[in-house]
Amino acid sequence: PPDSPVGPRAWQSACRSAFRRAHVVKAFNTLSAFALQQGDVRGSKEIPISSDNARARRLVSELVRNMGLHPVDFGALRAAREIEEIPFSFFREWKVAGYVALLVFFLFYLLLFMRRQICPNLDSTDGWNWNRFQTFPLKNGMLAFALSGTVMLLLCYVPGTIAGYLQLYRGTKYSTFPSWLDRWLKSRKQMGLLALFMGSLHGCMAVFTQIDEGMAEPARWSQQLFIALGIVLLGVLGVLGVSSLPSVSAGLTWREFSFLQRYLGWASVLLVTGHAFFKGYTKLLVPRFECVVLASETQIIVFLCFLTVLLKVPLLIPCVHSRLMKVRRGYERMPNGSPA
Amino acid sequence: PPDSPVGPRAWQSACRSAFRRAHVVKAFNTLSAFALQQGDVRGSKEIPISSDNARARRLVSELVRNMGLHPVDFGALRAAREIEEIPFSFFREWKVAGYVALLVFFLFYLLLFMRRQICPNLDSTDGWNWNRFQTFPLKNGMLAFALSGTVMLLLCYVPGTIAGYLQLYRGTKYSTFPSWLDRWLKSRKQMGLLALFMGSLHGCMAVFTQIDEGMAEPARWSQQLFIALGIVLLGVLGVLGVSSLPSVSAGLTWREFSFLQRYLGWASVLLVTGHAFFKGYTKLLVPRFECVVLASETQIIVFLCFLTVLLKVPLLIPCVHSRLMKVRRGYERMPNGSPA
Amino acid sequence: PPDSPVGPRAWQSACRSAFRRAHVVKAFNTLSAFALQQGDVRGSKEIPISSDNARARRLVSELVRNMGLHPVDFGALRAAREIEEIPFSFFREWKVAGYVALLVFFLFYLLLFMRRQICPNLDSTDGWNWNRFQTFPLKNGMLAFALSGTVMLLLCYVPGTIAGYLQLYRGTKYSTFPSWLDRWLKSRKQMGLLALFMGSLHGCMAVFTQIDEGMAEPARWSQQLFIALGIVLLGVLGVLGVSSLPSVSAGLTWREFSFLQRYLGWASVLLVTGHAFFKGYTKLLVPRFECVVLASETQIIVFLCFLTVLLKVPLLIPCVHSRLMKVRRGYERMPNGSPA
Repeated sequence: PPDSPVGPRAWQSACRSAFRRAHVVKAFNTLSAFALQQGDVRGSKEIPISSDNARARRLVSELVRNMGLHPVDFGALRAAREIEEIPFSFFREWKVAGYVALLVFFLFYLLLFMRRQICPNLDSTDGWNWNRFQTFPLKNGMLAFALSGTVMLLLCYVPGTIAGYLQLYRGTKYSTFPSWLDRWLKSRKQMGLLALFMGSLHGCMAVFTQIDEGMAEPARWSQQLFIALGIVLLGVLGVLGVSSLPSVSAGLTWREFSFLQRYLGWASVLLVTGHAFFKGYTKLLVPRFECVVLASETQIIVFLCFLTVLLKVPLLIPCVHSRLMKVRRGYERMPNGSPA
Repeated sequence: PPDSPVGPRAWQSACRSAFRRAHVVKAFNTLSAFALQQGDVRGSKEIPISSDNARARRLVSELVRNMGLHPVDFGALRAAREIEEIPFSFFREWKVAGYVALLVFFLFYLLLFMRRQICPNLDSTDGWNWNRFQTFPLKNGMLAFALSGTVMLLLCYVPGTIAGYLQLYRGTKYSTFPSWLDRWLKSRKQMGLLALFMGSLHGCMAVFTQIDEGMAEPARWSQQLFIALGIVLLGVLGVLGVSSLPSVSAGLTWREFSFLQRYLGWASVLLVTGHAFFKGYTKLLVPRFECVVLASETQIIVFLCFLTVLLKVPLLIPCVHSRLMKVRRGYERMPNGSPA
Repeated sequence: PPDSPVGPRAWQSACRSAFRRAHVVKAFNTLSAFALQQGDVRGSKEIPISSDNARARRLVSELVRNMGLHPVDFGALRAAREIEEIPFSFFREWKVAGYVALLVFFLFYLLLFMRRQICPNLDSTDGWNWNRFQTFPLKNGMLAFALSGTVMLLLCYVPGTIAGYLQLYRGTKYSTFPSWLDRWLKSRKQMGLLALFMGSLHGCMAVFTQIDEGMAEPARWSQQLFIALGIVLLGVLGVLGVSSLPSVSAGLTWREFSFLQRYLGWASVLLVTGHAFFKGYTKLLVPRFECVVLASETQIIVFLCFLTVLLKVPLLIPCVHSRLMKVRRGYERMPNGSPA
């Protein structure tokens, strides 16, 4: 990165020119000196090694192995720059998804707090009722995790749809995506994992709020379906989560992996839509504003789910789909409309 | 596979004879060209490389590494055939377990649907009661997952027992198993993971049906034991599931791995037997047929559990066990009955 | 280990002197001969290979690869000793944590059994009431898992604090820790995973006991907070558990890994303290002894939690913290009090 010190970067070239007879090997910079001294290496035990001299590289590899660590051959010394950047990385690929998740969670928590605690007290004629605040940790948390988990899941599948429209519009796949879309596309895995995390917390919390409130009497099929869809949704997200573990996905061919991501992924979008829909489908079109402007959280989330699904539907129309597949296979429409 | 095109298979030998001076390296066929162009390689990042020339192989390895992928040395070009079959594989080892699980789930769902919705309505004198159908998503699903998960777990441990009897009967371990048993034995891991998946869904669904129905009043030890056994069972299956993750099992010695599989595995069979038994042990021997022929699902599953355990018991009798161990260590009984 | 046979250890040196012309390669000893014959290698598929001859090592590597196994280059034949010890290892790093967990669970189960079943019956004037024993599987198990899981979690973070005090007292980090502390420090990961396992079982069991007992009426914020903290605690422990999977932690830099362990770790200690505190904070200072001497389990566990947190607090005071950091960076106080 441009903001990291330039000095050390040039270290090995300086070193190489100073000791012309010696073989320079780059290694060990990814370890904490503190951890090494304590003999307690935590985190990655893989030691990237690079050198222009194969024998020197092999010698250092054996040294690494004797220390109980795993040498990873990074090839020629040119790779040293890349190796030097490893310790500076700090959850880089989690940044976008993490901040988005925090923001979404905070906004929904605020909305719920206004709708369930503040507004009813403001509108009430009986004065301020502190009892409304009793439910803020569990019930509010449960709903906030439900809403933000759903949004994270939708955010996982929206960018692929947008990318499809963009490729159709441009008539080629060879132009790069705008950088915001590119970063969004690259954060999908993390967004999906955060959706799984939030969904699991929502599920655990939902159990206890349901104990508090009891089930509909008599048991109604819509509530049963609502709960069953939620549970199957968590199961599907769990399978996707396990398949994204490095050691598991390393054993999948790309056909298997993209099958899981595409079909299970869209299955989860449909499941979350159904889960939200059957939650309160009878009251879905009844205006239920609080403080005049705040819409019901169920209405918001069902609207977002349907929007995501509707956005995808045109791409599934046979003629559009076949055109998109053609573009993705390398077909290009020339500026004047005739194929390349 | 015999049904895949033969042409490409011979590609590298044709290539080798055409360019006699060049070094042929086989690599990159496991990647999707589409994913490569998008710069978004998902699924396995391991690139198998094979070549008869060590230097050429090393050069391609560095190329792979510079692309941010992981080269895996597959040795001589002879391995190219094997490498070419990788992209054609599509959940090959999941096929048997997956189809069996679908079939078992469907059959049990049908049984439950008949016993709980159709038969009571047929036998009823009050006419058709649509209210019986209210519970079909959650309660029926919960029971269907319980029953099919249990059967998958039993199917995991039955083939080992059958193999033991076969080895005892034949008096040798050097004859191959019939192909159905061989495929069954090789699907055990996947069957166990599907049992864990179905058991987890059953557990989540059971929570909500239990909220609906409440606990026995006053709290009875048998219901408490029934639930506690189910939870410990899920914990044991979870440990087995984690130990079957590639990166975890790679760190286990075979003694550790077979200890986990054997003891925790049979512990889970005993736990599921206890879980099913204490579910309704008071009504276990009372005939409860619906539609004249459909037995109670609890009776069916307890019967299957006991059958699995009983099938294993003779192999644990000291003299039988020591004989089996002898056979497994390589002892052979000659056709005329005397040892080799 | 000193108790393993010495004979085989010397095998390869004997071998080397006997066949001076041959190249000795050490491999395959980590496989079970039984598994190899059955063609069903379970557990690790990594085959450590060592040899003083690079060509011989490469030949055996290809042999291993052709068998469908993964060769791992352990370098010179000197590593053969290390390779020979692999199959003798049997959950070595789990021993301390495993025995501690069993002991703690047993002691808490005994305490609960005395306090909830035996003592009330002894003190009662109405004679022995067998109904008190109805809850022993689920409710007692739930509480025993809660208490022992909490203790395992605390035991995970206490040794680091003790090590900090010891380093402050000694004024150096270069003296080795006493062996009990060293073994304790090295068992932290396993203790944390056992805490996650016990906590998950506790959570599942708590759902059903809560169904039995119902929620406080009307919903009180303290019970809602108590449950919400417990669920978030399980989520945090789950993230820590996933990050300790070999393939995941191999992808983390040491900064990322120690960030997770330190901040999420201490967050989980604070969460468990809050969870225990809000469970019964109104009755926390009321003496509730049974059988005269047995304190309430909630009081015990809250006391232990606060003790762990209080033990850590002095190390967070700025001047103490900066001193400790200085020591950990290599600063040494000379015996007479002046820095080295």
